[in-house]
Amino acid sequence: MNITKPTLILDEAKCKANIAFMADKAKKHNIELRPHFKTHQSLEIGQWFKEAGVSKITVSSLDMAEYFAKDWNDITVAFPVNILEIDTINRLASKVTLNLLVESVATAEFLIKHLKHSVNFLIKLNIGNGRTGLMPNNTETIDAILETTKNTDRLNFIGFLGHAGQTYKCRSKTEILKVHEEAQATIVNVKNKYKAQYPNIIVSYGDTPSCSVADNFEGLDELRPGNYAFYDVMQVQIGDCSYNDIAVAMACPIVSIHKDRNQIVIYGGGIHFSKDRIEKNGTLVFGEVAKSNGSTWHDVIPNMYLKALSQEHGVVSVPETEINNYNIGDIIYVLPVHSCMTADLMKRYTTTEGYRITMMVNY
Amino acid sequence: MNITKPTLILDEAKCKANIAFMADKAKKHNIELRPHFKTHQSLEIGQWFKEAGVSKITVSSLDMAEYFAKDWNDITVAFPVNILEIDTINRLASKVTLNLLVESVATAEFLIKHLKHSVNFLIKLNIGNGRTGLMPNNTETIDAILETTKNTDRLNFIGFLGHAGQTYKCRSKTEILKVHEEAQATIVNVKNKYKAQYPNIIVSYGDTPSCSVADNFEGLDELRPGNYAFYDVMQVQIGDCSYNDIAVAMACPIVSIHKDRNQIVIYGGGIHFSKDRIEKNGTLVFGEVAKSNGSTWHDVIPNMYLKALSQEHGVVSVPETEINNYNIGDIIYVLPVHSCMTADLMKRYTTTEGYRITMMVNY
Repeated sequence: MNITKPTLILDEAKCKANIAFMADKAKKHNIELRPHFKTHQSLEIGQWFKEAGVSKITVSSLDMAEYFAKDWNDITVAFPVNILEIDTINRLASKVTLNLLVESVATAEFLIKHLKHSVNFLIKLNIGNGRTGLMPNNTETIDAILETTKNTDRLNFIGFLGHAGQTYKCRSKTEILKVHEEAQATIVNVKNKYKAQYPNIIVSYGDTPSCSVADNFEGLDELRPGNYAFYDVMQVQIGDCSYNDIAVAMACPIVSIHKDRNQIVIYGGGIHFSKDRIEKNGTLVFGEVAKSNGSTWHDVIPNMYLKALSQEHGVVSVPETEINNYNIGDIIYVLPVHSCMTADLMKRYTTTEGYRITMMVNY
Repeated sequence: MNITKPTLILDEAKCKANIAFMADKAKKHNIELRPHFKTHQSLEIGQWFKEAGVSKITVSSLDMAEYFAKDWNDITVAFPVNILEIDTINRLASKVTLNLLVESVATAEFLIKHLKHSVNFLIKLNIGNGRTGLMPNNTETIDAILETTKNTDRLNFIGFLGHAGQTYKCRSKTEILKVHEEAQATIVNVKNKYKAQYPNIIVSYGDTPSCSVADNFEGLDELRPGNYAFYDVMQVQIGDCSYNDIAVAMACPIVSIHKDRNQIVIYGGGIHFSKDRIEKNGTLVFGEVAKSNGSTWHDVIPNMYLKALSQEHGVVSVPETEINNYNIGDIIYVLPVHSCMTADLMKRYTTTEGYRITMMVNY
């Protein structure tokens, strides 16, 4: 493999092991797995999920739904409906089972008026994350949406959807499980209120930390984790995976070595990694460096991390005992803080075997 | 203009005014302007600089140099040489005047051995930013590089280059000027040491804050600001421009309104804005909202800002007095925190007149 520029390397075996882990877990719990494909955004990687028995998917935009509609016929767009894209919605609804998120009467009314085909919808609930969705006790709006949609064949109510994204603030399995139990109870409680009236409704639930560590999914019908296909340094910090589970790394050339300040500068910046960061012992970290092992990587090197990113530069803090092991022109492997964002920027994968895998590109 | 998705809008008049401002300033001070094109990454916008009298440019990658070599024949790559891209360097050196940054003997030796054409080089100095470059008092390494390169016709020493990026920590004109004076003195001092030996060497200097506010460039020969073509919320905070100078804004559809928490959710997330942020009165800010004015925007709305970004979602904090002015499906204009990163993600511009402008795309 001839790497000359920042390159996103994918360890196919690790990725497939992650995919199998979650597929097996869902089977064991007899729960539908509808993985979120925003992480990898790749038809080819999507096939690996098919091989693991997955038949339904989640995406985060209508563009992504159109891209994946080539191979998948049951797609949930886990994002509040953007009514301005009604043409795309109609195009998609004519060919796949499309599941949309509704959280207002205004959106429901717009859809009833403009949909040319029938779509399913879930009501998005805010189960603690605070990003979007109705408060679970906002039965007034839930009832108003259901009242608005009850006499149309365009909008078919199939249940409630929540994302316990507050697990991203956790720092251990115990903390994740606590958040999960609360979020699970909250959303199952809403379902139970409406079950008599709508006996077939489901609860769609998901986030990689909860789905990775929980072992009780009672009352939930569907899981939507996405990041677990790759994991990343942020998930290690949250406490739901180990460094060894991380399936992607950025291979970056060393362009400068500053022994006087124990730093290495790599070609690899914010336009490659994204500017997502974590705080570790009071220090900002934009990626962690793993030992190079030919065309792949192994263990993380303690205290060797990306400390700053500008557009193309990455500044790596290097332990004094390590700095003499590197030369200008060497490639180092950096585990990304947030693999979804890094993949989105890189727009392609190179496997550790040197095989190229394409992604959605829609400029 | 029919906006249905996150769209990067460019106000051509504001951008051209920014371009003219810096061109006029450089002319007035009789100093070469070699603007950094990493901000806009567009051949078409590059032409606006030509019209303002610019003939030399700066870029941050060899890919960008190749893209701009179509229209420009004097290009500085303001990034430490990535020796792994020697083929690209040779290709470029065969057609344009290529100026590279060298900061180690190892890189100089590699280039002497592998260059097929003559290139110019500048020695990169760390003039306070701490990202990369040699310490100005590291005459040992400077001398070693000059010794290594003195007998080759492949590497032609043309001077010193510094980037006073520490101005990004400033919060007023006064602070910027103080940093500028120190950085200027530092780099001019190095030049003066080597002037007797190399009478034609230059000092290339630049960063948008310094170049925007300073009025003394004595001893400097060349300025390389880039961001000033667009400016952004970060530059307003630094203190070198006003909101009214910002030439780009993201037009984003409203997908959800949460009056109970005074928040609006927009289609527009980290994959559109980037995750760059500033801290303002102790709060993280990922963008600020400006009043919509048909196909453009005007004043910033106080206390209305992007408070959180996930992959596609943006959560906007809205003053209670404002929230009733918005409906689902409306477009809001968000001034980006860091326009270079946002432009890099969006990969195209739509002018306020509705005209599309392309950028470099090299996936």
